[in-house]
Amino acid sequence: MARFKLTIEYDGTPFVGWQVQKQGLSVQGQLHKALLALSGEDFVPRGAGRTDAGVHARGQVAHIDLEKEWLADKVRDGLNYHLKPDPISVLSAEQVDEAFDARFGAVMRHYEYLIVNRRARLALDLEKAWHVGPALDASAMHEAGQAFIGHHDFTTFRSVHCQAKSPLKSVEDLSVKQDGARILICVCARSFMHNQVRSMVGSLVQVGLGKWPASGIAQALEAKDRSACGPVAPPWGLYFMRVDY
Amino acid sequence: MARFKLTIEYDGTPFVGWQVQKQGLSVQGQLHKALLALSGEDFVPRGAGRTDAGVHARGQVAHIDLEKEWLADKVRDGLNYHLKPDPISVLSAEQVDEAFDARFGAVMRHYEYLIVNRRARLALDLEKAWHVGPALDASAMHEAGQAFIGHHDFTTFRSVHCQAKSPLKSVEDLSVKQDGARILICVCARSFMHNQVRSMVGSLVQVGLGKWPASGIAQALEAKDRSACGPVAPPWGLYFMRVDY
Repeated sequence: MARFKLTIEYDGTPFVGWQVQKQGLSVQGQLHKALLALSGEDFVPRGAGRTDAGVHARGQVAHIDLEKEWLADKVRDGLNYHLKPDPISVLSAEQVDEAFDARFGAVMRHYEYLIVNRRARLALDLEKAWHVGPALDASAMHEAGQAFIGHHDFTTFRSVHCQAKSPLKSVEDLSVKQDGARILICVCARSFMHNQVRSMVGSLVQVGLGKWPASGIAQALEAKDRSACGPVAPPWGLYFMRVDY
Repeated sequence: MARFKLTIEYDGTPFVGWQVQKQGLSVQGQLHKALLALSGEDFVPRGAGRTDAGVHARGQVAHIDLEKEWLADKVRDGLNYHLKPDPISVLSAEQVDEAFDARFGAVMRHYEYLIVNRRARLALDLEKAWHVGPALDASAMHEAGQAFIGHHDFTTFRSVHCQAKSPLKSVEDLSVKQDGARILICVCARSFMHNQVRSMVGSLVQVGLGKWPASGIAQALEAKDRSACGPVAPPWGLYFMRVDY
């Protein structure tokens, strides 16, 4: 048996999300099918993060086990062949130690959230960014967002459907950068809870619009109450960028 | 009568190109229809550049004339309303002097060409970049591409269907930059001939692949022969970025 680490890019638009669901196409399910077609082996890829429907990835990581011997590059190329025409691409496959676990071995997960802040509707970035019409103050968002960094109770910033036992999480870093109409929010943590990044971004936008004061983020954290969260940002601006092990 | 300058973004994928054709949807035609629906006035927008089918724009410029009085922002918002659901967005509308001409007043046109250079197929950048599998030497492409700068006979680098009277053009600047798998070619000139940028990019890729020597670009220019051009790059990596007046 050999374990392979896969680094995967996908356009989340046509999928119900990473994880296999009862209905609809999932990234995990399409990878599973491609692996079966390639190797005849029935192994459900295990991912580092369960992205929601519409969320994209430039560097999702998953591991698979194969009984037969394979060259890593043949795994990558073979999966990509069988994944056509789905917008899923295996960027790399590497043989790793059997102790490697894509989910439990992750020490840092990196996400980016793209906002296009302009009056005019989106054309080239349709379904790839959140369109916010009214002017946002990106530096106010950056300032306020520093309150997220550190170890906190994120009860306010997780979905009511979140199954994590503890609401305590450590955010390692968060930045908000502006380049013309594009506002990019970069955030990393060892792990995130369900809808956490989109909840954080939605609340930062309240600050950016001037609807919340700069202290609003710290207050919302302190509230430990889901109803204190801003409107959750839509999935199509979110990108799962990288996992560190 | 008032003239407006429109700055326009579009995803070229579903269109036959900028210009109205006998068959199929064009960006110009959809703008024309939106203008008619908004104002009742029948004016065909005049664009700064005739992008081909599949070519994108982040800053195409066109001008329109309106008999009735309009606030510029109402023109922008009204056109965007009537352009739905086409992936065309009017980024800005400005009232300009009647002497302004989007095509003939342009003093510099800026294009970018995006290549994703990696083994794995595209997922997120499908139809938005050219996928080149074998490794490219981007600095060799940059070096060789400097030969394009200046006033030259571009006979080698224009379509056989090009209707320009003279093959003489001046390329102001050209650069090739690499950021991981992404290779971005930026080029600007007062004006370009039909398929010129894609012909130049296709030939630069021959240098990047090591199939042409560094001197290959200068030699191809010197040949003044269409058959000396490398394979023309596909439209979906090309972006019309900006026009200076």
